[in-house]
Amino acid sequence: MPSDVSPALLKEAQRQHKLLSKGVINTYPEPNADGHDGLFLKILKSLKDDRPLKVKLGADPTAPDIHLGHAVVLQKMRDFQECGHIAQFLIGDYTALIGDPSGRNKTRPPLTEEEINQNAKTYMEQVFKVVKKDESVFQLLTNSTWLNKLSFADTIKLCAQVTVAQIVQREDFANRLAQNAPISMHELLYPIMQGYDSVAMDCDIELGGTDQTFNCLMGRQLMQAQNMPPQTVMTLPLLVGLDGTDKMSKSKNNYIGLTDDPADMFGKVMSIPDELMPSYFELLTNIGTDSLPKHPMDAKKLLGQTLVTRFHDESAAQAAQQDFETRFSKRDIPEDLQTFEVEEAELPLVDLLKRVEFAKSNNEARTFIKQNAVKIDGEPIQDINHVHTLTPAPVVLQAGKRRMIKVQKLA
Amino acid sequence: MPSDVSPALLKEAQRQHKLLSKGVINTYPEPNADGHDGLFLKILKSLKDDRPLKVKLGADPTAPDIHLGHAVVLQKMRDFQECGHIAQFLIGDYTALIGDPSGRNKTRPPLTEEEINQNAKTYMEQVFKVVKKDESVFQLLTNSTWLNKLSFADTIKLCAQVTVAQIVQREDFANRLAQNAPISMHELLYPIMQGYDSVAMDCDIELGGTDQTFNCLMGRQLMQAQNMPPQTVMTLPLLVGLDGTDKMSKSKNNYIGLTDDPADMFGKVMSIPDELMPSYFELLTNIGTDSLPKHPMDAKKLLGQTLVTRFHDESAAQAAQQDFETRFSKRDIPEDLQTFEVEEAELPLVDLLKRVEFAKSNNEARTFIKQNAVKIDGEPIQDINHVHTLTPAPVVLQAGKRRMIKVQKLA
Repeated sequence: MPSDVSPALLKEAQRQHKLLSKGVINTYPEPNADGHDGLFLKILKSLKDDRPLKVKLGADPTAPDIHLGHAVVLQKMRDFQECGHIAQFLIGDYTALIGDPSGRNKTRPPLTEEEINQNAKTYMEQVFKVVKKDESVFQLLTNSTWLNKLSFADTIKLCAQVTVAQIVQREDFANRLAQNAPISMHELLYPIMQGYDSVAMDCDIELGGTDQTFNCLMGRQLMQAQNMPPQTVMTLPLLVGLDGTDKMSKSKNNYIGLTDDPADMFGKVMSIPDELMPSYFELLTNIGTDSLPKHPMDAKKLLGQTLVTRFHDESAAQAAQQDFETRFSKRDIPEDLQTFEVEEAELPLVDLLKRVEFAKSNNEARTFIKQNAVKIDGEPIQDINHVHTLTPAPVVLQAGKRRMIKVQKLA
Repeated sequence: MPSDVSPALLKEAQRQHKLLSKGVINTYPEPNADGHDGLFLKILKSLKDDRPLKVKLGADPTAPDIHLGHAVVLQKMRDFQECGHIAQFLIGDYTALIGDPSGRNKTRPPLTEEEINQNAKTYMEQVFKVVKKDESVFQLLTNSTWLNKLSFADTIKLCAQVTVAQIVQREDFANRLAQNAPISMHELLYPIMQGYDSVAMDCDIELGGTDQTFNCLMGRQLMQAQNMPPQTVMTLPLLVGLDGTDKMSKSKNNYIGLTDDPADMFGKVMSIPDELMPSYFELLTNIGTDSLPKHPMDAKKLLGQTLVTRFHDESAAQAAQQDFETRFSKRDIPEDLQTFEVEEAELPLVDLLKRVEFAKSNNEARTFIKQNAVKIDGEPIQDINHVHTLTPAPVVLQAGKRRMIKVQKLA
């Protein structure tokens, strides 16, 4: 233990370190011979110097809508704020202004300053559902501030700090090279630019998903090359989506949006596979996984309550839970109903009944429908030609009183 | 043949094309279906538009001393001038100001503006031994003029025109990647920068040694990406040095400098291996190889005369030849003396006599020396411990009247 530190200060450093390391996948630098990692050393220095840490999080102004997957890292930013440190949000406006100059990536047209400002505003409105807006612990920055001043000579000098072999190590570059897929030269500049943002911000810590590890470490390297104390990098896990397989993302439609209404949010939480509960609690709440309710159904209700309370309020959370319970229990629908997933977005009801093994033949399925015994979310369906549209939000399919299953589209 | 062109104009285009293609290794674009290459089409357009062509040649201001190897491409610039076109010399001052920012290349320290100006002056003084200084057909440019204005965004847009796979195709990059030797990221920017020079200069033609093919073609590509008529690229052979093996270069000490004095220049020409005469005439003179003197000795004298006349004057050339002939014939030294090469820079005379098989033993060698029978370049050597310093410039070693040989250090 460092000898020049008071026991009280050391205790505070340990308290912060415990809170701030929770759920973190990797911290760079890793623990030294004394067992202190980069985070601990930064906290200790901050306490000794009585100077809050500057904690960087990069934000992409081309994708302003955020979901619970983002909330993992936002929650960590909030934790830093709670310890008195400064959350620095960096809007990457510079490259958004340029767009994809190769024209290959159609989803990257150049944005106007106005569009970027609007996106940043939308983004920050959602961010403030997790992060404190208090100016003493919050800063909003745009990287055009310093990148506008970078000359070609500066670019050459910056690039000289990095070797080609290092850059093409980045997983997506390595994969594309292996597949002979083209990489534009300007793409190689982006990690270097992101690293330079850390130089310009002189930040103490950078947070990112595990998929950002390479770019964040580039910041460390460039700061070192400028003889600056290099930032500590902390990577956070990528939240698995509602489908239980892929990383939560808008494109996979397996997400819970931070602006989803209370009923949707609660309902989607209830549809999360049971086995994900510990990781959701770990990543999104400060509730210890050892104090979780034993029954997954109860754990989900607690998670739903917690999240709806955070992103809306407590009364909305209670209403959402009540609504959910009513919808299921009033119809004598067991809450822990089995879920069946289909790949198709549309399926004839007859086929669906056979799929879930409620009917053995088309004839049997049609008979059930004609008997008025088939319901979707409690609504009887009497059209034997009904084609049902499926989404990742589950619906309850019933055939008679006793056969019941949740059906949803595979995300 | 193009139909909208008068016969006189076409004849002139053909005349220029013949002169300007002489000795060229490759022209890009290569001949089209009508058999017209990029040079012919540019000449034709120049004649039709009555506008001289702008012909670019890049110059490195870190290495101001130039030799006959450079004269090959300078002669081509002169030929363009003789046809009324503009020789544009581009001093690459921008990167010289930066130096090697990785610090790996010790031979590339950043130069001051003053040093660059001095080097450019030295360089141009030598260039004007071949190229006309006449302002109507000569321009001197520095690439800092436009590279100073390039922003980071411009750099990104420029880099987007090129793929990583393309750049690492360049021979030296490919070799270093294969050997796992580090390449700094900034090095990849240099070919792009050189290509951008052509964009900024809007030139019609770029000349370079065959080792510059990649960089010159980069200019074509970037001009095309800007919807400009792309430059025609003409590559010239690399002159083989006095050793008959390596490309002429200062570092190999196998060169004839443009500022060498007449006697040195003539003497070095006389030491060129016979088999190189046709290529020296082809690359450095307008004397057709079919009209060369049959005897290599006479061909070398003609070449020596021609070059000394060009870089000094005719009387100096005659004096140099006379001096050479005197030194050899007056001493009854056959002009076509055999040459013996040694690897060492210094060798005891006794050993040298054994090497060339003038003496069979140390004793025999010492006896010759004591008898005053051993001469180097006509000077008797009487010290049996004499250690001789060897250079790539040959000296004549004699033992008695009849044993005679030229000795030089292997370059």
